[in-house]
Amino acid sequence: MGARGIAAGALIWSSRKRCFCSIHANAGSNASATAVEDAEIRPAKKPVDEAVTPRSQDFSRWYLDVIDAAELADYGPVRGTMVIRPYGYAIWEFVQSWLDAKFKETGHSNMYFPQLIPYSFIEKETSHVEGFSPELALVTIGGGKELEEKLVVRPTSETMVNHMFAQWIRSHRDLPLLVNQWANVTRWERRTKPFIRTLEFLWQEGHTAHATAQEAEEEALRMIEVYRTFAVEQAAMPVIVGRKSRLERFAGATCTYTIEAMMGDRRALQAGTSHNLGQNFARAFETQFTDVNGDLQHIWQTSWGMSTRMVGGIIMTHGDDKGLMLPPKLAPIQVVIVPIWKKGDEQESVLQAAHKVESLVRAAGIRVKLDTFDQRTPGWKFNHWELKGVPIRIEIGPKDVANNSVVVARRDVPGKAGKEFGIFMERSVLIDHLRAKLDDIQSSLLARATEFRDSNIVDVNSYEELKAVIAEGKWARGPWCGSDDNETTVKEETGATIRCFPFDQPEAKTCIFTNKTTHEVAIFAKSY
Amino acid sequence: MGARGIAAGALIWSSRKRCFCSIHANAGSNASATAVEDAEIRPAKKPVDEAVTPRSQDFSRWYLDVIDAAELADYGPVRGTMVIRPYGYAIWEFVQSWLDAKFKETGHSNMYFPQLIPYSFIEKETSHVEGFSPELALVTIGGGKELEEKLVVRPTSETMVNHMFAQWIRSHRDLPLLVNQWANVTRWERRTKPFIRTLEFLWQEGHTAHATAQEAEEEALRMIEVYRTFAVEQAAMPVIVGRKSRLERFAGATCTYTIEAMMGDRRALQAGTSHNLGQNFARAFETQFTDVNGDLQHIWQTSWGMSTRMVGGIIMTHGDDKGLMLPPKLAPIQVVIVPIWKKGDEQESVLQAAHKVESLVRAAGIRVKLDTFDQRTPGWKFNHWELKGVPIRIEIGPKDVANNSVVVARRDVPGKAGKEFGIFMERSVLIDHLRAKLDDIQSSLLARATEFRDSNIVDVNSYEELKAVIAEGKWARGPWCGSDDNETTVKEETGATIRCFPFDQPEAKTCIFTNKTTHEVAIFAKSY
Repeated sequence: MGARGIAAGALIWSSRKRCFCSIHANAGSNASATAVEDAEIRPAKKPVDEAVTPRSQDFSRWYLDVIDAAELADYGPVRGTMVIRPYGYAIWEFVQSWLDAKFKETGHSNMYFPQLIPYSFIEKETSHVEGFSPELALVTIGGGKELEEKLVVRPTSETMVNHMFAQWIRSHRDLPLLVNQWANVTRWERRTKPFIRTLEFLWQEGHTAHATAQEAEEEALRMIEVYRTFAVEQAAMPVIVGRKSRLERFAGATCTYTIEAMMGDRRALQAGTSHNLGQNFARAFETQFTDVNGDLQHIWQTSWGMSTRMVGGIIMTHGDDKGLMLPPKLAPIQVVIVPIWKKGDEQESVLQAAHKVESLVRAAGIRVKLDTFDQRTPGWKFNHWELKGVPIRIEIGPKDVANNSVVVARRDVPGKAGKEFGIFMERSVLIDHLRAKLDDIQSSLLARATEFRDSNIVDVNSYEELKAVIAEGKWARGPWCGSDDNETTVKEETGATIRCFPFDQPEAKTCIFTNKTTHEVAIFAKSY
Repeated sequence: MGARGIAAGALIWSSRKRCFCSIHANAGSNASATAVEDAEIRPAKKPVDEAVTPRSQDFSRWYLDVIDAAELADYGPVRGTMVIRPYGYAIWEFVQSWLDAKFKETGHSNMYFPQLIPYSFIEKETSHVEGFSPELALVTIGGGKELEEKLVVRPTSETMVNHMFAQWIRSHRDLPLLVNQWANVTRWERRTKPFIRTLEFLWQEGHTAHATAQEAEEEALRMIEVYRTFAVEQAAMPVIVGRKSRLERFAGATCTYTIEAMMGDRRALQAGTSHNLGQNFARAFETQFTDVNGDLQHIWQTSWGMSTRMVGGIIMTHGDDKGLMLPPKLAPIQVVIVPIWKKGDEQESVLQAAHKVESLVRAAGIRVKLDTFDQRTPGWKFNHWELKGVPIRIEIGPKDVANNSVVVARRDVPGKAGKEFGIFMERSVLIDHLRAKLDDIQSSLLARATEFRDSNIVDVNSYEELKAVIAEGKWARGPWCGSDDNETTVKEETGATIRCFPFDQPEAKTCIFTNKTTHEVAIFAKSY
């Protein structure tokens, strides 16, 4: 699939369209009309047999190569859109199922709000319209007729939610109202990158209404903690939890909490956010309730979301020169079995043993794949499944069959060091071994990513130090009490933004920009 | 919630908007701009304490009342859109989880295609564009700019799927390609009804590609059988499986299979469809593969979908004058416990027993709700949970506590006949009793619906008989080999359409319209 041998090199979108057109003259020609205005740089497709660009050589190319070669996603016909292919979507399904269970445990119900929002709704909350109006997709024609009012294709649902909450909430007895929806959202982004920033993406958005400011604050904190737990425990992605600066917070929130992760190129990725909306939307939409004293009050709200961006974060946190490296808990295939034979008469006994091992492993609830395809060499298969990031490979050759044992190789430890020979092919031994190994890989990935991150965050005591650290590509952590303008200056001069004021704070210090005494440090970094 | 005491009576949408405006002056005024062109009739909201309009009195009003009072759904601000509320969404989640598991069992993977489709794609397949162009929502502005090519908000994804399949499929080794997506779709319908026909709805759409016509046909049949199984075994909804007529089939299909259900008002509901697309889309999009002989061939395809419409079907199949009646397998709450006390000192022991029963039932994996709300009478609660369609109610009063027993009442058998007294409050006895009861309710609902349906399908031997049967509101089954024009005549003269040529066929007969000998009977009915 896709092995069309196009010369490597960065092509802009329209070139890629042309190369499709040469093959499918009818399919691509009209589609490209929408693709010209905002060009996106992407490499040409590589034949699947070819290794991906090494990560150490070109991180951005490596990322796109991995997505293509591991069949995680493809580009949609409209600029900036993405098709999530089965292998990538399976990772997202693991993200979904863990989060969904956790949301329900914490008292939230799923529901669904329409995606078409009257344009006038978006205009009601001042900072919301400022934040979102540049990136809206608008439906202006429906059923062949020009609509009287333009409709916004949901970029997020706070306005729609408030329109409905205002009808459902009457009394304090209706509160708290805790809901979530799994949905697609559309934001007309100029610069796009698969999973990380696309015109349309999938996410969940939680929306809650409370009777008091304190309850809303507690909820916002509870949900950022759910995201932190997911990132660390499931995705093996160390994150820094903190508060966004005024400039960086959600359009319409009084406070945004974030989890920030460091990617393999040391750029920061905002991997999940939880907003305390205060009464901003409630005032705009007159969402009120009668409190215990019979007085009418505006509700206090939160919203929080995690998206398919998380899949991009997983790729960029753990991958290496060979391709993807998936944390076992989110790996669609946790163990791949590669049978090895040379002579024809070896094949039967090897395959028989491989099938037996497959059954054992599957019965133990481990996600396993037996690769019996006979037109590829074992070496090709090793590379292929390493590229796909499968945590464990089991090799079974004639000698192993004779010894009633298998070879177990870890994806995260290259070469011989990661291989164990002579693992007994008996149920209890093998399964225990695999389970321990999967656990170990999961924690090793986290430990490695944590070490990498911590060695790339530098404490700074002056703006000069910050500039030097950012220029090196690292994160700078330093005392900060600057104004919005000061923050903008730093961004313009260094390319770095305040990622967050981390929850974990050292002693008060002197602000690196204003030299005033401040009680907080902020983390600065270049980001996705 | 919603207890605003608006006078009953059918109001059109814009009146409803006005009544919102009187309460939320800011919230509704602009939104109504999009609502004027296609009016939809809907009743005013009823206070939650008020009983729903009896089904026997006005089926359509009853349906809308139940959706409102049971908090299954609400109306979105844009005409014809729907908000699916937690109780309704939970039913949909059961539909999803059963189908999703079954799709995976049958070898399909989930993935996700973008929802914005270049307009030119829709035009490629002739009958597809004819079928869908009147109901398209078009995005014409993105990121503040007029787009060079209009984008269609996905009404279904065959065109997008083929654009991508054409890039992924090269060889017979890439086939079969079996995928599914859970997604929202948008169709600009003129006459809408919650769950049954809305501008936006949720569904799954399966898309498969095969190397031979036979494999595609087998797949289309396999998936309609999955839908049949779901309807009968999970939703307790008897369905007739059959083939659509040329006029009624999917725009672009060579053959559409359907499951047709009879609603409580005897209208037919198409509850799921599976299409053999032949090579129609493959030819339009040049989706080709190299077969085993090295020859280039167009792929053979299927697509199949089931939607949130199923929730409407469940309501209209099982509900009665008191409200919703949910099949236990899809009921978000399978058992509700209503504690009953009169004197203050009874309260503690009753509640203690109720909590104990709740724990027992929950631990057994039965979905249970204990209603401890102290500002409503037991009688109010009985009505409330009957309205919500909960299959079993457990009553616990002081006498029951004294006897260490409970009262178990079935939702599907009204009054004393449905009650059993003195069910021992001990774990094994109670749980066995509840499990048996839930199974019995599940099969009773199916049996009742099947009997109702069968007694309302009449075999006809002439067009005159057909007209009489349809005029009575029943379904007519009769031999048919008429032309498309004949079929249109029947529709114009009777309001009935061919629902399907059922798989289950009697002996060959004489066509009721053409008097020619035919080997098939068709089923005619008025439908949703």
